[in-house]
Amino acid sequence: MGTLREVLPKRLKGIPSQDKPIWLHQAEALPHRNFITSSEKELVDLVRTYGEFTKADFVTYTDYSRTKITSCIDSLLNKKIIIANKATEYSGGRRSKTFGLNGNLGYLAGVDIGATSIDLEIADFSGRLLVRYAEPASVKDGPIKVLGRVCSLLEKMLSENNLSSEKLTGIGIGVPGPVDFSVGTVVSPPIMPGWDRYPVIQTVQQWFPSANVVVDNDVNVMALGEINQGAGKRIPNLIFVKIGTGIGAGIICEGRIYRGSSGCAGDIGHISVNKPGLLCPCGNQGCLETVAAGPAIADRALKAAQAGRSPILLNLYEKNGTILRAEDVGIAAREGDALAIEVIRESGQFIGDVLASLVNFYNPEMIVIGGAVSNLGNLLLSSIRQAVLHRSLPLATRDLKIVFSEIGPDAGVIGAVNLAMDYIFSMSIGSTS
Amino acid sequence: MGTLREVLPKRLKGIPSQDKPIWLHQAEALPHRNFITSSEKELVDLVRTYGEFTKADFVTYTDYSRTKITSCIDSLLNKKIIIANKATEYSGGRRSKTFGLNGNLGYLAGVDIGATSIDLEIADFSGRLLVRYAEPASVKDGPIKVLGRVCSLLEKMLSENNLSSEKLTGIGIGVPGPVDFSVGTVVSPPIMPGWDRYPVIQTVQQWFPSANVVVDNDVNVMALGEINQGAGKRIPNLIFVKIGTGIGAGIICEGRIYRGSSGCAGDIGHISVNKPGLLCPCGNQGCLETVAAGPAIADRALKAAQAGRSPILLNLYEKNGTILRAEDVGIAAREGDALAIEVIRESGQFIGDVLASLVNFYNPEMIVIGGAVSNLGNLLLSSIRQAVLHRSLPLATRDLKIVFSEIGPDAGVIGAVNLAMDYIFSMSIGSTS
Repeated sequence: MGTLREVLPKRLKGIPSQDKPIWLHQAEALPHRNFITSSEKELVDLVRTYGEFTKADFVTYTDYSRTKITSCIDSLLNKKIIIANKATEYSGGRRSKTFGLNGNLGYLAGVDIGATSIDLEIADFSGRLLVRYAEPASVKDGPIKVLGRVCSLLEKMLSENNLSSEKLTGIGIGVPGPVDFSVGTVVSPPIMPGWDRYPVIQTVQQWFPSANVVVDNDVNVMALGEINQGAGKRIPNLIFVKIGTGIGAGIICEGRIYRGSSGCAGDIGHISVNKPGLLCPCGNQGCLETVAAGPAIADRALKAAQAGRSPILLNLYEKNGTILRAEDVGIAAREGDALAIEVIRESGQFIGDVLASLVNFYNPEMIVIGGAVSNLGNLLLSSIRQAVLHRSLPLATRDLKIVFSEIGPDAGVIGAVNLAMDYIFSMSIGSTS
Repeated sequence: MGTLREVLPKRLKGIPSQDKPIWLHQAEALPHRNFITSSEKELVDLVRTYGEFTKADFVTYTDYSRTKITSCIDSLLNKKIIIANKATEYSGGRRSKTFGLNGNLGYLAGVDIGATSIDLEIADFSGRLLVRYAEPASVKDGPIKVLGRVCSLLEKMLSENNLSSEKLTGIGIGVPGPVDFSVGTVVSPPIMPGWDRYPVIQTVQQWFPSANVVVDNDVNVMALGEINQGAGKRIPNLIFVKIGTGIGAGIICEGRIYRGSSGCAGDIGHISVNKPGLLCPCGNQGCLETVAAGPAIADRALKAAQAGRSPILLNLYEKNGTILRAEDVGIAAREGDALAIEVIRESGQFIGDVLASLVNFYNPEMIVIGGAVSNLGNLLLSSIRQAVLHRSLPLATRDLKIVFSEIGPDAGVIGAVNLAMDYIFSMSIGSTS
């Protein structure tokens, strides 16, 4: 069976999840692991997604027998992963006990490292927000400084709120660069000097030895935030599009992050929009980012304003100290400035043209637009919608919703908390019964 | 829990697969069902994908204990789903028994209904081809005539080869139109008059009451053929592109067909290539199909030939009775005809440009090109490759393979057999132990 061994990587015992990273063997030694069997995980996933369940509900919505459900519930109660609640409503028959996730299982930290900011959140296992904090920071300062700051801030947030750092069970981290999820490191990040293959997980684990640490790309993490607590709740097939300094997408496939074969799925900022004029740092011409990301919007508006087409924008430009930002274009558009409106419409059209292709290919149920440029407002959204409806097939757009993020700038931290929780519950030990 | 019931559809007991179609309750009454538990299914999936396994292999490559594996193996042996073989090779230690799928579990039929042909195959559960047959047929004759012909041909193939029709356990059917997989019917098919919402499954089941019948779109079925017995064997994330009268894609995500939220994922023939001139039957302009599908290639070549640019093509056109087909362009290109080469290069470029966007978005490990137009040969393939490499990001193309189908016109029947087998093994009953 030599060939078998070659083609099929040996499975790490105890970690059957498809998301299982290679570096997990390091975390294996950690003390506060809550191992659950795969059948127990199925029950946990149900209460995580839908809230409280009675025993009868579990029998109805799984394929397990009542006996099996009873033994799973007992085991999960024993491990303090779920707790039993008295039924609060009376629906004609006998009141049944309901079971829900034990919020007190521990704390989870969500870390959203942006290009120029750190956003932090501590939550419990029921997803309840305990503390949130944000401060400006430059990712260019390198991993030692940035991660040191993140960890000392987390310690401070825990101690100031009387939360024991030993109960910090998981830390999810989103970073603004490509991540090799299987090994948990940042790989050749364009805007993160010093981070390439830096041991992020090991560093953070030195500060919080009780925590399971997991790292992913920021757009994937934001997509996870949207399907857990944002506009895309419970939607299995979704595309999250972040429009900021760059443009990227997080793909949700059957309720999970889809990363692609090299982990770089969703890199839609470099899809060509057939505008040969503009050179992109990636080496190609006419990438979506060069015409529709924040800097492109500001650039185009500034050039036209300097050519005399918008006194409002020129005014804003001079007031800001000869800087024009994408949000200024939004301000001018809200004041009715014709040029600003035209620039936003054009950008929406470019984004919509690319999304139309992706809708034909991927047929998602929802597209969520997030990132700073989404602040440009409904004009941008309606241009995107119009372009998608015009270019996609009716069957693919019949039930398609294109919406702005509901959790906006919090998508990152919320998603990072959920990344940590997903990760912890992915560490099941298979069905041992 | 009223809200729970609303959001979470009640699960059909005994059918936990995500691919579980709604009409399965009809099939529930069928006699020859081989129910397996979800843990048993995991073992079956391993031997289906990788061949023979020893007990130790199962322990290594799953998360189950040796005890659990032993009980699963015993149960699968009892149900005759797997069989035990003596080890054939001696590797130093004691020879171990290996287990493989029981080829004699029954027969499976693969049916590939094309626009102008019917392709049929009967195979056993080890995937071994027993009989294959093809004949011309017009899908426009409607479902009663076409399905009647399919069923009588299958009956004839079984009886002529002394195969009992009662042992026909599954029939997979690919059709050249959109299929609502959850209900198993063809939906508003453009080239299949009379098929809209026709009860294909029920019709075929009247002929073969012992068989489980499953229907899908032809491109999805071909993609399944490729990952099971073609160029994409064991590749989890793959795009299969069929270039024929139209252009469509079958998407494989984590080893399974991805159908999208309305079942129309992969409809890449109507992605815009920014050629505003050409009107597509879909109502839009500049769809990929209008410049790179078979008829478009033939049209473009013919117009240029009639303008005097290719005596070879004009000659072929007149020899064929004033018809020029895409394959004639291929013939002329192989003879060195400059115009034919140019037309093929252009078409490859258009297809490659669209695929480049999809590579940035989906980051597949492989793209397999199939369908009649792939006969145009390496010139087409190299143009596609060149366009993708030029326009996609290096990380996404580093390990990307773009290849022609290895099983060519047989992808449909091979995929249909696998569709039937997948379907039968999806009918597990959950872990009952």
